[in-house]
Amino acid sequence: MLELKVTDHLYRDPSAPVAERVRDLLARMTLTEKVGQVNQRMYGWDAYERTADGHRLTDAFRAEVATYDGMGALYGLQRADAWSGVGFADGITAADGARVADAVQRHVMENTRLGIPVLLVEEVPHGHQALDGTVLPVNLAVGATWDPELYEAASAAAGAELRARGGHVALVSALDLVRDPRWGRAEECFGEDPYLAARLTEALVRGMRTAGVAVVLKHFAGQGATIGGRNSAATELSARELHEIHLAAALAGVRAGAAGVMAAYNEFDGLPCVANRTLLTELLRDQWRFEGIVMADGCAVDRLVRLTGDPVSASALALNAGCDLSLWDACYPRLAEAVEQGLVAEQTLDTAVARVLALKFRLGLFDEPSSHAEAPGDQRSDPSELSERMARASITLLANDGGVLPIAPAPRRIAVLGPNADSIAQQIGDYTAPQRPGSHHVTVLDGIRSAAPPDTEVTYARGCELVGGDLSGVPEATAVAAAADIAVLVLGGSSARSGDTVFDSNGAAVVTSANPVDMTCGEGVDLADLRLPEGQLALMDAVAATGVPVVVVLVQGRPHAVPDLPGTAGAVLSAWYPGPWGGRAVADVLFGAAEPEGRLPVSVPRSAAQLPVFYNAKDHGYRGYVDQPATARYAFGHGLSYTTVGYAPPRLSRARVTPDDPALICRVSVRNTGERPVRETVQLYVRRLSGGASWPRIRELRGFARLELRPGEEADAVFEIDADTLGSVTRDLGLAVEPGELLVETGPSSDRTQGARLVIASSG
Amino acid sequence: MLELKVTDHLYRDPSAPVAERVRDLLARMTLTEKVGQVNQRMYGWDAYERTADGHRLTDAFRAEVATYDGMGALYGLQRADAWSGVGFADGITAADGARVADAVQRHVMENTRLGIPVLLVEEVPHGHQALDGTVLPVNLAVGATWDPELYEAASAAAGAELRARGGHVALVSALDLVRDPRWGRAEECFGEDPYLAARLTEALVRGMRTAGVAVVLKHFAGQGATIGGRNSAATELSARELHEIHLAAALAGVRAGAAGVMAAYNEFDGLPCVANRTLLTELLRDQWRFEGIVMADGCAVDRLVRLTGDPVSASALALNAGCDLSLWDACYPRLAEAVEQGLVAEQTLDTAVARVLALKFRLGLFDEPSSHAEAPGDQRSDPSELSERMARASITLLANDGGVLPIAPAPRRIAVLGPNADSIAQQIGDYTAPQRPGSHHVTVLDGIRSAAPPDTEVTYARGCELVGGDLSGVPEATAVAAAADIAVLVLGGSSARSGDTVFDSNGAAVVTSANPVDMTCGEGVDLADLRLPEGQLALMDAVAATGVPVVVVLVQGRPHAVPDLPGTAGAVLSAWYPGPWGGRAVADVLFGAAEPEGRLPVSVPRSAAQLPVFYNAKDHGYRGYVDQPATARYAFGHGLSYTTVGYAPPRLSRARVTPDDPALICRVSVRNTGERPVRETVQLYVRRLSGGASWPRIRELRGFARLELRPGEEADAVFEIDADTLGSVTRDLGLAVEPGELLVETGPSSDRTQGARLVIASSG
Repeated sequence: MLELKVTDHLYRDPSAPVAERVRDLLARMTLTEKVGQVNQRMYGWDAYERTADGHRLTDAFRAEVATYDGMGALYGLQRADAWSGVGFADGITAADGARVADAVQRHVMENTRLGIPVLLVEEVPHGHQALDGTVLPVNLAVGATWDPELYEAASAAAGAELRARGGHVALVSALDLVRDPRWGRAEECFGEDPYLAARLTEALVRGMRTAGVAVVLKHFAGQGATIGGRNSAATELSARELHEIHLAAALAGVRAGAAGVMAAYNEFDGLPCVANRTLLTELLRDQWRFEGIVMADGCAVDRLVRLTGDPVSASALALNAGCDLSLWDACYPRLAEAVEQGLVAEQTLDTAVARVLALKFRLGLFDEPSSHAEAPGDQRSDPSELSERMARASITLLANDGGVLPIAPAPRRIAVLGPNADSIAQQIGDYTAPQRPGSHHVTVLDGIRSAAPPDTEVTYARGCELVGGDLSGVPEATAVAAAADIAVLVLGGSSARSGDTVFDSNGAAVVTSANPVDMTCGEGVDLADLRLPEGQLALMDAVAATGVPVVVVLVQGRPHAVPDLPGTAGAVLSAWYPGPWGGRAVADVLFGAAEPEGRLPVSVPRSAAQLPVFYNAKDHGYRGYVDQPATARYAFGHGLSYTTVGYAPPRLSRARVTPDDPALICRVSVRNTGERPVRETVQLYVRRLSGGASWPRIRELRGFARLELRPGEEADAVFEIDADTLGSVTRDLGLAVEPGELLVETGPSSDRTQGARLVIASSG
Repeated sequence: MLELKVTDHLYRDPSAPVAERVRDLLARMTLTEKVGQVNQRMYGWDAYERTADGHRLTDAFRAEVATYDGMGALYGLQRADAWSGVGFADGITAADGARVADAVQRHVMENTRLGIPVLLVEEVPHGHQALDGTVLPVNLAVGATWDPELYEAASAAAGAELRARGGHVALVSALDLVRDPRWGRAEECFGEDPYLAARLTEALVRGMRTAGVAVVLKHFAGQGATIGGRNSAATELSARELHEIHLAAALAGVRAGAAGVMAAYNEFDGLPCVANRTLLTELLRDQWRFEGIVMADGCAVDRLVRLTGDPVSASALALNAGCDLSLWDACYPRLAEAVEQGLVAEQTLDTAVARVLALKFRLGLFDEPSSHAEAPGDQRSDPSELSERMARASITLLANDGGVLPIAPAPRRIAVLGPNADSIAQQIGDYTAPQRPGSHHVTVLDGIRSAAPPDTEVTYARGCELVGGDLSGVPEATAVAAAADIAVLVLGGSSARSGDTVFDSNGAAVVTSANPVDMTCGEGVDLADLRLPEGQLALMDAVAATGVPVVVVLVQGRPHAVPDLPGTAGAVLSAWYPGPWGGRAVADVLFGAAEPEGRLPVSVPRSAAQLPVFYNAKDHGYRGYVDQPATARYAFGHGLSYTTVGYAPPRLSRARVTPDDPALICRVSVRNTGERPVRETVQLYVRRLSGGASWPRIRELRGFARLELRPGEEADAVFEIDADTLGSVTRDLGLAVEPGELLVETGPSSDRTQGARLVIASSG
């Protein structure tokens, strides 16, 4: 425990209100110290170096602290991955990480005039991205679970891991939506739908807060609307579309207590978000009353030099827009000049500094600066167990022709084929630390081998590479398939970065994707043609032609365009990037030890040529292209079970409400009409028939509920409909219940709904 | 000549100012008469019927006039095509058309209380869409000419044809841009670029005004931004993108004297244009001071019932937004109820009526109502000659590997192949009247036969159908190609509507496209996958595999994704839909009797998967998809010549200007370095390096000039740069020259430019 200097400064008094402590401290600060607090220039991994018996702080770190007599935030102290260049050799374990974090904090507080603690900021996109951090399924898989409670528990566990290593702030992708699946960051999204994303963002924030972690939500705002799915390129978005689609998750996160949002690279109305006062100040501060921090995306402020012509003006543009804390850029260090040149008022800088300080006070860093560094392992739930539960809940059965699944009892032989069948790297997605070897990783092949009945032989052939058209492995794989009772083809994409070190199921180290072209997904890896690569399609065709029943398992970070399986019966399921234990989850579903519970959080297109395909398009009755439909191959919300489920039409407690008195109850009877149990996700949509400020969408998700039904069992899903359910964006971009007529629809997916008419009569 | 009733009413006094005549007349009108003036309910072809010795007006027409004691406008009296169902049997010739128009006008003026003439409104999208109207190349071909002067002359000729038949108002597509080539109405656009479209829209308006025709420009606004290229479906557009890209043509047209604009189907900011007061009133009236009429697109007001729940409210919504004149809808007849219910002020209705009346006064219809009906043939220039000149000027040579073109003198045998080689229907595009048989139509096959040297044999095989994968004709066509010295493959698309009657080169009547799936383009015919259909690609591959040099001629209404030609040398040219005489133009270019002069008005994509590909994208330095580039296969402005042309860098008369004093001269030396003459289109682009209110685009066309150069000749293209050249959209959506740094670039296409730096210093 660090001993605090005892002074009579108000800001050091833990019993004083945060606002007063901030005011007192600010008044004592020099311009340089203020600029230091809004900067986050250094990579955390450059702050320490290995010694013979541990780690020590670097001279670079000490110099950086000295430059501003303080440090606003330090990013990625624990981060390890190919991008940061930190691996097993130079990375730090959980225990070492906690010690280094403590040393960093001690240094900053003991060697600066005012002793302001530093925020330790880490990537926690799906688990803490640090050596030995527990990897969760990617967000797109989280979306497929439709299970905020489970995700809240997993987020609490991930947050606890972060806190145990001394981290304070988790950066988590949560706000982007997959409006174009060509985008390589599709895997970081909860899906295409604002409501689903909002519920999961709330769960994330709640879980992290349980662990005492401050969450910064990425990215604000509208980044999923990037044109052509092109990463951090142009976005084209009306103010109305922004409000109707892209803000719901952010608003939910802010209301749930998010500590900050990260201002995105993309433009809104022609100005990058970091320079966009409409978003960062008028919306976030004036309208939403958000009091947390706005952090710029990495070097995003530097990009503004293209607009302003010089870095000082760029820093002023971002600060005046509402960016409180920068990330790596060369502009925010110039903020003192911006103040001196009159480009920004010192009061504006003070406001940004105050927000950063307030967060530090709220986190208790001034008062118990080292208390965060708990002993590793001090966690209430087992994160790897939660990760595997999430993987299992996310597996989405898209097709099951001829009832191929679950695999019939005791097949003689199962052929497991495909480039994603036995690679951990391809299960874990982007933004993941290097994976150590060990039995706690389970590839799909591992999982099938473990779960197969004792007398069943499991054969394996890779068949083809992930990308390219090399067909040399196809004949062998086809022969392996032909000799089996069923073929499991594990296809899809990969976000394994060039140079990522991973380990195969035998624990042998493999540097995956030495050739970067092997990546088909991940940040900066956008894919134009959404079909599976040529080799994978040829393998699928050849295997299907054998007549052996085929199960295609898609391990993927985006919805690929999946053609109909040629030939006879076959099943298709998406396992997304299910994380290290995903192979066991897949095997459980294949053999029927678990039911497929996932529902599509995103529409699956027929081809890139028909984009966009999101379900909640404007309702213009479009009849389709002359050469293909405009609708998805598999609709948002779709996901088959091993049983059958019957839905009655929804019943409303009243058919007429008013804006002032909108509450009603919607009940829908759901019956398990098949022979296996089911955990059914009952979905509630709203479809506007008339009224409202803008053109209506085909339908919009506004609720979902889980029913567990034994064979033959019937139960009601009950939805409490309120102003949130019925509200829509008004002409002046507010939210209100507006008069008109709606259909309240329920069903098992967005393309299989039944509706009940609801009139919203004017209150007067 | 109709004899006017002589009264002392001011509105009948030709010497009184229009505003006073309107005021006087309005004050005399009943609510019913007013509603009549803003309605255009009836199809013109329902107003007449054939008799033994001519035509007579129908009872339905008389009843419609009686209902409102007048008629605002009558649409399509002369229109003939499959959509209207009017063909040779029931359509009217030019002379009959003039007589019927006269009878209509006479009836309306003589049988109504106030004798207000009716506006006769016709489609003149590329020539008057009437029996025997001269068909011009489609707008996309007009765009490829980059020749406003030629188009102005052609527009004057088309306008004269309209006037000769008694029409007053021409509806012409001019404002939409091809931002997504999947859109079936791509052919109706001048291309993807606002500047090029603005220059051609001006030319259109000027030409039509020369002929005394009032032009209504279609469509206002932003319809080319429709999501996924889906016709009249949703549009997603920020206010800034609307102003930066989609309004330039409209503003130019309004300034050139357009009589009206047509409010489009699409939404802007969530509200259909017909209901969008921001567009129709705040922008068009308050900001632009436009005094012409706003006409709704066909039944567009009816669609508003989806928003309002009832037709009376829908009529009020559109009128309050700023729609003056409806088209076919069932809502505007209900406007009297809207006034009576207080949903719209009678004064608002008066404003709309006043605009319709003012147009009638300005056209002189009150004073010389029949003078418009000139004798057919009273035209100053031969429209068919202009049509062919435009076709010739539009032919765009995309590739000419190995110098295949022009065809070497006196080949032994030329094989002409492909589904578009011998079909007039596929040359003329959408919105075209049925074509009579006769020698004045020239298919590509006709043209080649006529132009081929005397000893050259021209062989022909269709090879495949326009769509589908039937390969049965490929072997024969391949054999025909193999036996020739060169193969001309005429491929592409078709906008020939089901049931269109056309005639082949022998004058035999052919009903084309009995199967609507044969259309791949045209209104309501959007294409997802931009590759040529399977059969055409197979034919191309098979012919290329013979080793015979191949020329691919694309007859198309949109840029198809053209793969590299397999095998040996080959040329690709786009002839667009070149109109009835386009075959002669193509042949002239193939044989070198004419130079290829067309330049791409739209980017040619590699595939639908990489959309969008427009050249003036926001400049984010995007590096491309992992599986294909994000850039076009052929760039905007591209087009080869038969000679070579060298460009020096641009020279600016000064390197520093101010917003108050922005004028300078840009000169670029261009040299014909080859052996044939050239008519070169020198292009001027602006690329912003810093400053400006929003994120800059890669480059933006701001000028073009034509140089005619003999072999070896050098000349300067001279551009006068002014505030229009340097201006950009400001933060508050105005236009201004804003400080910063620019590159002024010149070159032969958007991807081959050289630039000179220009500083815009603050004026202060």
